[in-house]
Amino acid sequence: MNGTGALPLPKRWTQHLEQPFAKRLRRMTYAAPALIAADWGTTNFRLFLFGTDGEIIAKHTANIGLKNLGVLSFEQALLSVMKGDFDRPDLPILLSGMVGSRTGWVEAPYQSCPSSLAAIAATLVDAPSSKLKVKIVPGLSAPADHEGLLNVMRGEETQLFGLSASHGDGVFVLPGTHSKWAKVENGIVEGFSSYMTGEMFQVLKSHSILGDLMHNDKDDEAAFKLGVDRAMADKSFLSLVFSVRTEGLFGHIAPESLSSYLSGLLIGSEIRAESIRHGVRPVGIVGDGTLSNLYKRALLHTGFTDVAIHDGDEASARGLWAIAHEGKLVL
Amino acid sequence: MNGTGALPLPKRWTQHLEQPFAKRLRRMTYAAPALIAADWGTTNFRLFLFGTDGEIIAKHTANIGLKNLGVLSFEQALLSVMKGDFDRPDLPILLSGMVGSRTGWVEAPYQSCPSSLAAIAATLVDAPSSKLKVKIVPGLSAPADHEGLLNVMRGEETQLFGLSASHGDGVFVLPGTHSKWAKVENGIVEGFSSYMTGEMFQVLKSHSILGDLMHNDKDDEAAFKLGVDRAMADKSFLSLVFSVRTEGLFGHIAPESLSSYLSGLLIGSEIRAESIRHGVRPVGIVGDGTLSNLYKRALLHTGFTDVAIHDGDEASARGLWAIAHEGKLVL
Repeated sequence: MNGTGALPLPKRWTQHLEQPFAKRLRRMTYAAPALIAADWGTTNFRLFLFGTDGEIIAKHTANIGLKNLGVLSFEQALLSVMKGDFDRPDLPILLSGMVGSRTGWVEAPYQSCPSSLAAIAATLVDAPSSKLKVKIVPGLSAPADHEGLLNVMRGEETQLFGLSASHGDGVFVLPGTHSKWAKVENGIVEGFSSYMTGEMFQVLKSHSILGDLMHNDKDDEAAFKLGVDRAMADKSFLSLVFSVRTEGLFGHIAPESLSSYLSGLLIGSEIRAESIRHGVRPVGIVGDGTLSNLYKRALLHTGFTDVAIHDGDEASARGLWAIAHEGKLVL
Repeated sequence: MNGTGALPLPKRWTQHLEQPFAKRLRRMTYAAPALIAADWGTTNFRLFLFGTDGEIIAKHTANIGLKNLGVLSFEQALLSVMKGDFDRPDLPILLSGMVGSRTGWVEAPYQSCPSSLAAIAATLVDAPSSKLKVKIVPGLSAPADHEGLLNVMRGEETQLFGLSASHGDGVFVLPGTHSKWAKVENGIVEGFSSYMTGEMFQVLKSHSILGDLMHNDKDDEAAFKLGVDRAMADKSFLSLVFSVRTEGLFGHIAPESLSSYLSGLLIGSEIRAESIRHGVRPVGIVGDGTLSNLYKRALLHTGFTDVAIHDGDEASARGLWAIAHEGKLVL
């Protein structure tokens, strides 16, 4: 293996696959492995093996998020998943996410927005390891609406640089426990803001009076849109959110639809603030599944016309490769 | 006892009291008992015995809030506290609060704002009881910021009519789990709005990431005011509230002061919305202790100059008497 050559896939990898896919796969080739990289967060761990051409050779997920490490050191945890295709301790390793936080392997201090791929790649931090060559991507910080108040992200910056590399500039929303909205212009992450949307939904549903009337939750489009509309028109969140209670009490919204209504109120609040900030521009949603679809529905409902959903893992992988390439971990 | 006469207090009531107070008390007289009334809520129960002159002869509290009733019926629970001075099943009884809700003794349907003392007194509902003459005060409903969306209150309407009777018109805030702001003009409750402020504080502190960094909470005036200021200037609650996390992470606000900061953000959000609604007018705060003082501090800090605190029990008692009088339960 010469490090740049393209080899056919071994037949044993494909012989059990169904025919059409297997045929397609056999025609594919892969470049020699060049980089191991991972998005390593509080709960998630996604490992990628890249070939010299930047394509993904193998993927792996493991239950070694920061909160599940137990007695393992970061080095031990990483070594435990470097088996099979990943048994290549000689390769450079690039990590992003909470692994670079103060409670991570080593702190990779936040870089300030506006920030470019070159700036991020120039500030990678070496993790202490005698067996592996590990570098960690710094997080990003950005000024919030008040002086001295900062937004921060870890892991999402890598997705943003990945999307920028593959899809160009744009406004991107990364929905989740703590949603983020970022603006990328000329390949530079200009700034971003954070919303406690996902966590707010969970705590209100599970621990407040608003969850008391919810039963047999279903996805109710009308209730969801009603919530979005009201949030778009209202300024007082603490007042509006209490309507989940009153609308349930008066039987205006059925118990199984109150969850959709709350979801609409929360996502609508987020979109309202960002509409004021950015106007109605093309928006790329980063993530998978139900949550991304909710954001897409809400955005289209509120007048956004150009809304795309981008796979989160793919964005992480593209970003890790782009940063590794820029940082000359790979040629 | 002729029902209207004024009698001296029995000596056995005063003989063990310290001298100056006992002397003063001995000079006082009390009118014959005329009404038993209670503010009966989900957790609280406050019982009053009124004389024919509307003054309070005796007070009693008991742990028979709706959620603590156990196997007792409402009639049994009420009879259980009608002892001593209150052993007067012949007197008319007036109740306000959640006892009039759908899960209470009997439903006293919400009356719509604008609503007057006369309107409320005309819609008292008889509770089913073979032993007692019980009437229940209806709650109030008011349109919220969106068509079809209602605010509701039970118990607070009685406090508002009490304050109106003793202090006249005004804007009143009733801080608490679900804070309410009401406007009373010409003795009529014109409308009100609700905020999930108190409950939001509790669920975020106890069940969200925002509580994680809080330790040894102290009352920090600077952090509280910072929160109020930021809330007054910001429109996006879901974004701003997340700063409790970042300000803690960056060490800008100490762990023991984060709770004050969150409190400021929440109360500030409420004041912001109501400032827009009412402008800077005199405000009466209804309630006791720490919470009322926090609201007073926040209101004064944001430019309100005429801020008074009114005792909540006193307001309830004044309101119960005013409604009973208007409804001719007493002469």
